[in-house]
Amino acid sequence: MSRPYRIDGLQYANWSPEIFRQMREGAVDAVHVTIAYHENFRETVLNIEQWNRWFELHDDLIMMGRSGDDVRRARETNRTAIFFGFQNPSPIEDDIGLVEIVHTLGGRFMQLTYNNQSLLATGCYETDDTGLTRMGREVVAEMNRVGLVVDMSHSGERSTLEAIEHSARPIAITHANAASWQPALRNKSDDVLRALGESGGMLGFSMYPHHLKGKSDCTLDSFCGMIATTAELMGAERLGIGSDLCQDQPDSVVEWMRVGRWTKKIDYGEGSASDAGFPPMPSWFADNRDFGNIEAGLRAVGFSDSETAGIMGENWLRFFDESFGGR
Amino acid sequence: MSRPYRIDGLQYANWSPEIFRQMREGAVDAVHVTIAYHENFRETVLNIEQWNRWFELHDDLIMMGRSGDDVRRARETNRTAIFFGFQNPSPIEDDIGLVEIVHTLGGRFMQLTYNNQSLLATGCYETDDTGLTRMGREVVAEMNRVGLVVDMSHSGERSTLEAIEHSARPIAITHANAASWQPALRNKSDDVLRALGESGGMLGFSMYPHHLKGKSDCTLDSFCGMIATTAELMGAERLGIGSDLCQDQPDSVVEWMRVGRWTKKIDYGEGSASDAGFPPMPSWFADNRDFGNIEAGLRAVGFSDSETAGIMGENWLRFFDESFGGR
Repeated sequence: MSRPYRIDGLQYANWSPEIFRQMREGAVDAVHVTIAYHENFRETVLNIEQWNRWFELHDDLIMMGRSGDDVRRARETNRTAIFFGFQNPSPIEDDIGLVEIVHTLGGRFMQLTYNNQSLLATGCYETDDTGLTRMGREVVAEMNRVGLVVDMSHSGERSTLEAIEHSARPIAITHANAASWQPALRNKSDDVLRALGESGGMLGFSMYPHHLKGKSDCTLDSFCGMIATTAELMGAERLGIGSDLCQDQPDSVVEWMRVGRWTKKIDYGEGSASDAGFPPMPSWFADNRDFGNIEAGLRAVGFSDSETAGIMGENWLRFFDESFGGR
Repeated sequence: MSRPYRIDGLQYANWSPEIFRQMREGAVDAVHVTIAYHENFRETVLNIEQWNRWFELHDDLIMMGRSGDDVRRARETNRTAIFFGFQNPSPIEDDIGLVEIVHTLGGRFMQLTYNNQSLLATGCYETDDTGLTRMGREVVAEMNRVGLVVDMSHSGERSTLEAIEHSARPIAITHANAASWQPALRNKSDDVLRALGESGGMLGFSMYPHHLKGKSDCTLDSFCGMIATTAELMGAERLGIGSDLCQDQPDSVVEWMRVGRWTKKIDYGEGSASDAGFPPMPSWFADNRDFGNIEAGLRAVGFSDSETAGIMGENWLRFFDESFGGR
């Protein structure tokens, strides 16, 4: 058998040729990259323009991804396929017509919320979660129609359950872990994980230290043990990696992610005043060259070859095949 | 032989299901439609959103066109393929990165100027034509790269000759006639037409009355005679139709076309204070159902079956095949 596909369900790095080369060294066939947090439509288009330039300049390393077949094409040509996503619905502003537009421009995942209330749903940092809004229901239906995946990584519990229920197509939580293992606001309850699995959705496991038990000191064995427990809850075929790798970013970018333009004060998100920047990554996952460690860790906790291949990329590939086309 | 393709190289109607049905009655396989005059990028996207809605609601009559093969697919499914174009570079604002973005969104033709000086070149109503600007040369190269056709219908003589010379791929004049026949500012000199033909470019003949000898009273025989004369200059394989049909538009739209936001006064363009609106179309071309009249007129002035088929659509189809892909 040829080596299994390797797909990362979320990264937001300070992109550079060096990182693209690390993706190749790590044999990463596809990455879902965040191209907008609080950017409005025009600003998101500027970010796509920057990616278009990278695709032109580094077409020996990366290519634009639009479909599962593009992952296969990337692998055949020794490149990494890049799929665009938004961690907030700000790119569609208040205009449902922009859903199809951003999909045409390559958007494949969109979170209904970042940490706050959005026009569509409630973020995981709000006190009251009122579920999908009127516009939220309409936008989910439109996302289903064009093939833009609903991502609830940063949403509240009720909003997430309602999105799973309301969406006619399986949704994703691209980067989060089990709250039963590490009770971060961003991690997900067993109720959410069970509903996600039953609906055919996907969970990508995050290595962002605030999502890890013991944070930066989390062991590979503990991380993979949590994956094994989650497989019992959801089925191993619903699981993938969503590393949340934020490599080489200055602290000003953490601030943009957390604060955007919604407040004039500083919000520390999952950090704190004394720990405001990006925490160090765990020793066994520094960058794209370390996916082999996770693969070994999955085998060590007892996953079979085919289960390991699924979690490392084949499950995301199946999900990409099923999710990105229009209806 | 199956009937030849029918392609119209430019229309700007007040689109409606009725007009889409008339396209089908006239067996029109493809139309290049103007979706922006003075609209900036965001406004152009709103116009694309409106078209996306029409494609969804009227998918029994029309479909989005991106390539020559889409014209074939439209014909096989008894629909009209719609190709987007801009009569001014305002959709790309001052940002060369938007060239690829608007192409991804479906743009296939872009005029470097409407009637005025633009950031790229000089329009046909300016006193001095200074040719391609610094940005103009860069944007033409980028349009060549992505497959967005340079259209010089509303440009000045020098700018047009420089665009033909500078462009690495054949350009188009989608809607204009020979100035030797009707000396309108918008019609083209023999020098321009000869250079266009020698470079492999295309000319679409316009039936906008101000471009016709005798205006609304122009006869079909006179119009087709002008096409025959132009075929001697350029070769019949470089010719097509670009009707410039502006059906059902209120006079407020003529004003938007002519005045945009560049003046607070009224500019009458090819009209005048006493004749400010759209003049009546010639009797033999009222709308999309009348392409058969042109076909008959071309035969009557001596064009062969294959020349007639070329002018009615096969030449545009070949040009679409060669022009819309990336390099």
